[in-house]
Amino acid sequence: MPTPSTPAEKKITLAALGEFGLISSVTAGRTQPASTLLGPGDDAAVVAAPDGRVVACTDVLVEGVHFRFDWSSPEQVGRKAAAANLADVAAMGAVPTALLVGLACPADTDVPVLQAITDGLWAEAAAAGAGVVGGDVAASSQLVLSVTALGSLEGRPPVTRGGARPGDVVAVAGRLGWAAAGWAVLARGFRSPVAVVGAHRVPEPPYAAGPQAARAGATSMIDVSDGLLADLGHVAGASGVVIDVRSSVFSVAGRLADVGQALGVDPVHWILTGGEDHALVATFPSGAPEGWTVIGSVSAGEPAVLVDGRPYEGGPAGWEHFSP
Amino acid sequence: MPTPSTPAEKKITLAALGEFGLISSVTAGRTQPASTLLGPGDDAAVVAAPDGRVVACTDVLVEGVHFRFDWSSPEQVGRKAAAANLADVAAMGAVPTALLVGLACPADTDVPVLQAITDGLWAEAAAAGAGVVGGDVAASSQLVLSVTALGSLEGRPPVTRGGARPGDVVAVAGRLGWAAAGWAVLARGFRSPVAVVGAHRVPEPPYAAGPQAARAGATSMIDVSDGLLADLGHVAGASGVVIDVRSSVFSVAGRLADVGQALGVDPVHWILTGGEDHALVATFPSGAPEGWTVIGSVSAGEPAVLVDGRPYEGGPAGWEHFSP
Repeated sequence: MPTPSTPAEKKITLAALGEFGLISSVTAGRTQPASTLLGPGDDAAVVAAPDGRVVACTDVLVEGVHFRFDWSSPEQVGRKAAAANLADVAAMGAVPTALLVGLACPADTDVPVLQAITDGLWAEAAAAGAGVVGGDVAASSQLVLSVTALGSLEGRPPVTRGGARPGDVVAVAGRLGWAAAGWAVLARGFRSPVAVVGAHRVPEPPYAAGPQAARAGATSMIDVSDGLLADLGHVAGASGVVIDVRSSVFSVAGRLADVGQALGVDPVHWILTGGEDHALVATFPSGAPEGWTVIGSVSAGEPAVLVDGRPYEGGPAGWEHFSP
Repeated sequence: MPTPSTPAEKKITLAALGEFGLISSVTAGRTQPASTLLGPGDDAAVVAAPDGRVVACTDVLVEGVHFRFDWSSPEQVGRKAAAANLADVAAMGAVPTALLVGLACPADTDVPVLQAITDGLWAEAAAAGAGVVGGDVAASSQLVLSVTALGSLEGRPPVTRGGARPGDVVAVAGRLGWAAAGWAVLARGFRSPVAVVGAHRVPEPPYAAGPQAARAGATSMIDVSDGLLADLGHVAGASGVVIDVRSSVFSVAGRLADVGQALGVDPVHWILTGGEDHALVATFPSGAPEGWTVIGSVSAGEPAVLVDGRPYEGGPAGWEHFSP
């Protein structure tokens, strides 16, 4: 899959600009949040960690696997890479503070493409309250974006996958199934409806809902990156509990229903198994806070995820990038 | 450049094991340092940042650009990727605490190769006092390792590139020129002397010298990744000073001299321009601490790096990965 190009006579490639030129061009003139104590340009950045701890995670996105430049603009690719990581920070109950970006790409990649990816990373970081504080770029045959996100727990314990207890309710914040529906549309060669396709291009994780859930006493939390049932499976396994999802509680948005009808897919399948929306799903001992929707309950037993009391039989519950 | 293989009948590939299987197999049974408050396996890790700040940096290494599997073992590749990042943390005057690893590689990569890379990352992290706290893996056409290192300043200000002042001495800790000599040997098809070739395969950054320099009042510091003169150029530019290196102070180790003679290269050229040893070079207002060697001085003037009072004319002073 080639990277998008500008006309040859205008082409400025990474090879021509050089590593240091690119780094200067993408870091100049950016506004850092207060948590950035020392920004890009030295051997390392310094980021505030006010309570003496830092939350950290890394996600890798590969061209042709996680995104395609004929489906998404470079700016959308940058936003998506940032969102996947920032959502992981939120899923610990933390507030994102910083991103670091490892970029490998073909030496003939147009600099405006790289600048647009960086614009997207900055835009999504800013939406979550974070700054881009560092990174590195190197030549490779395929574009790879490895993003590390940092965050602050603001004095609270982290909300892990292992704390769900029998009697808890299961609740979700954010959209489910939209990115999967968008992928299904794009894979069939369509480019609309825009709202659904846009959900595949740029997820909209509910960043503030992570710390909100932690303050409300969430016992466990995860972001939905592989699919609701697959990710709840991680919670069930780590917590040693049974999670039962009620399929009747999902109100299917009109546009999702329309796409499902057009493609012959029950949209509840996308809701239960679609990844990449980066919704947050959490368990609470006594009701969910405002903005969260209760979708099920936790009970004792051999770890399992059920739908309406039974194993889900609608197909694979999630996916792995390396599955044969 | 193919990745190293085991015989076909024994082959376990990433595609067969899957992403989650690999992550389990490389994180199980590892001993984390006390700074790892929550290790791998959740949406994010939690790392101690005792003074309320965290140092963070990212470096990308690409197969065929930064390493070759016919020159280095997978374990050596892992060590080198970790060392490049841990040295950046040390160059801020900080103590490394954690690594996060973004790995992209072909789906048919042998799992033992990936485990050996991870062994190398763990070994080098442990040597610097840090743990591997997180990561992600994805399929790509070429092996890319993007490593993020975190560190603690232990209450001290960061030592940046911008603090060198006229009258300071310039001093170095660690080896210079060895990795470049090793590369020259390997590029000519030789595999010895082992000490020199080994320096290219696995650098030996003097991690403890970074915090030591900070405690001793270093005004600026950088790790030598692109070459001594090139990296001093960053210090001269950021500090607005002239740095003059005295070529007579370098004592050329016997094996480096031997290799220079065999290949017809003045080993001082490797010392001045060779990258990837990740020595630390710093400026001090009043003499260098024990274990550091004074190699020059800082004076006022238009930012420049001189050798024996003149611009260096021995060839390019460093390199960029994208130079045509």
